[in-house]
Amino acid sequence: MDFVNCEGWLTELDDMWPGKALSIQVEKEICHLRSPFQDIRLFETTDCGKMLVLDGMIQFTEYDEFAYQEMMTHVPMFSHPAPEKVLVIGGGDGGILRELAKHDTVKEIDICEIDEEVINVCREHVPSLACGFDDPRVNIHIADGSEFIKSHNSYYDVIIVDSSDPIGPGEALFHKAFYAGMKQALNDGGIIASQGESFFLHPEVFCNLLGVVRSLFPICGYSFMLVPTYPGGNIGVCLGSLKHKVNSPARRPSAEQQSKFNYYTPELHQASAVLPAFGQRLIDKVMAADPNSFN
Amino acid sequence: MDFVNCEGWLTELDDMWPGKALSIQVEKEICHLRSPFQDIRLFETTDCGKMLVLDGMIQFTEYDEFAYQEMMTHVPMFSHPAPEKVLVIGGGDGGILRELAKHDTVKEIDICEIDEEVINVCREHVPSLACGFDDPRVNIHIADGSEFIKSHNSYYDVIIVDSSDPIGPGEALFHKAFYAGMKQALNDGGIIASQGESFFLHPEVFCNLLGVVRSLFPICGYSFMLVPTYPGGNIGVCLGSLKHKVNSPARRPSAEQQSKFNYYTPELHQASAVLPAFGQRLIDKVMAADPNSFN
Repeated sequence: MDFVNCEGWLTELDDMWPGKALSIQVEKEICHLRSPFQDIRLFETTDCGKMLVLDGMIQFTEYDEFAYQEMMTHVPMFSHPAPEKVLVIGGGDGGILRELAKHDTVKEIDICEIDEEVINVCREHVPSLACGFDDPRVNIHIADGSEFIKSHNSYYDVIIVDSSDPIGPGEALFHKAFYAGMKQALNDGGIIASQGESFFLHPEVFCNLLGVVRSLFPICGYSFMLVPTYPGGNIGVCLGSLKHKVNSPARRPSAEQQSKFNYYTPELHQASAVLPAFGQRLIDKVMAADPNSFN
Repeated sequence: MDFVNCEGWLTELDDMWPGKALSIQVEKEICHLRSPFQDIRLFETTDCGKMLVLDGMIQFTEYDEFAYQEMMTHVPMFSHPAPEKVLVIGGGDGGILRELAKHDTVKEIDICEIDEEVINVCREHVPSLACGFDDPRVNIHIADGSEFIKSHNSYYDVIIVDSSDPIGPGEALFHKAFYAGMKQALNDGGIIASQGESFFLHPEVFCNLLGVVRSLFPICGYSFMLVPTYPGGNIGVCLGSLKHKVNSPARRPSAEQQSKFNYYTPELHQASAVLPAFGQRLIDKVMAADPNSFN
């Protein structure tokens, strides 16, 4: 749910964050359409560049999207010693693709986005993210991610799930069946990374997701990042791994790579996995619980 | 600046954060008065407990104040091997005092708050924070902190500045003269900690403050914490030290102490000093600049 008041402030009302709301001042609406899946609005804001809003929820602003895209991409990528085949599920704005393009080891990048209109809007109006589609290694698949993975057994080194919240078209991407599907689509030593919500704002969603991953993968983890224009200003990446640890990098970026990053560093990779005391207690509780109690 | 709309949402409009605003749904206003220094409003909110608003800026909500109070207190306290005499400047809500009371090494806690009305409102209505005033080691001084420190030479082991933003009564607490005064009020090996704003939202304020501290203290540092009801969801503690390092603890909390903390851990002490790439680049720039260019 969202509304724009007479003075041009868009306010995001979030059932997952009751009694609190973030407002962004908009200059103009660039486009507004309804796809078969969701309501899509793109705004020019006064201070945050372009802003994409799906079903009333802010997906990115150009001001701070780098934090999310870099951590969602580089934490799993640098946890893997040599990722060659990568799948992005969701991520129709192209931001994750833009970050993947900075990895020379990668030979093939598949993106599976259910809503072609999101891609079209971003390619037409938001080149700062959609430039990711220009990489020749990218193949676009317009399909349901949970179906797509069924036809790819033991194939990918890294799968990144760039989903919206578990309300609307992203809902299926938070269930155990989907994570089991991703596991079988992974190559030996593969790693999955998914939008892990905020442990601070949505402890129940966080715990269930971590519990699902923990019940399927020998190694799991969670790293948080600061994104001022998300509710509460933080969100995380939830990680499942068949072999490699995920709370520290397997290799360092080259100096040239690092110069292209505004958020990720190898030191931050480690630091972002260290949660405040109450967050660590949530993790301890998940680890001690019956693995079958999550779905 | 703030306003409450007809549906009971208080929106915080911040000149330091243009084009963005946080709104909190309020149930009722508990009290509203004007002190000689500022406009003071206390609300009961729908989902965040009690909320103090000074001159239109949210100072705390009971939902997430622990993150701020714990990091402002325990980062400098555990960086010091044996702090006995502590001064709090500002902090009239009592939250920092509540955290200091968890330290057995401490013999004397002075608090110097300029606005007695803030203390009165919190002692009457917000026992969850103002319980800090009940500790017998606490002495209350109603005075201007920048004057108070002049009569205390080489006295304190730790000084904590719990100020509002550099607009209004907190303004003097962001200048070099005040930091020089705090330095001379410190005992050998003393440490100061001050509300350090957000490196993400207010890079100029962050850089100037860090530059001031760096120009006066042999060791300086900055740790950030997540506070969802502050603009952008993060803020930091700026640290200056005469001898001890501040980016890792000099000693660990006892098991009993740790069980009382919801945010601080020794591991997080270290991790919270690791900033994203763009934040580290800001620090590098401050360190390379002429120390006299900050005031």
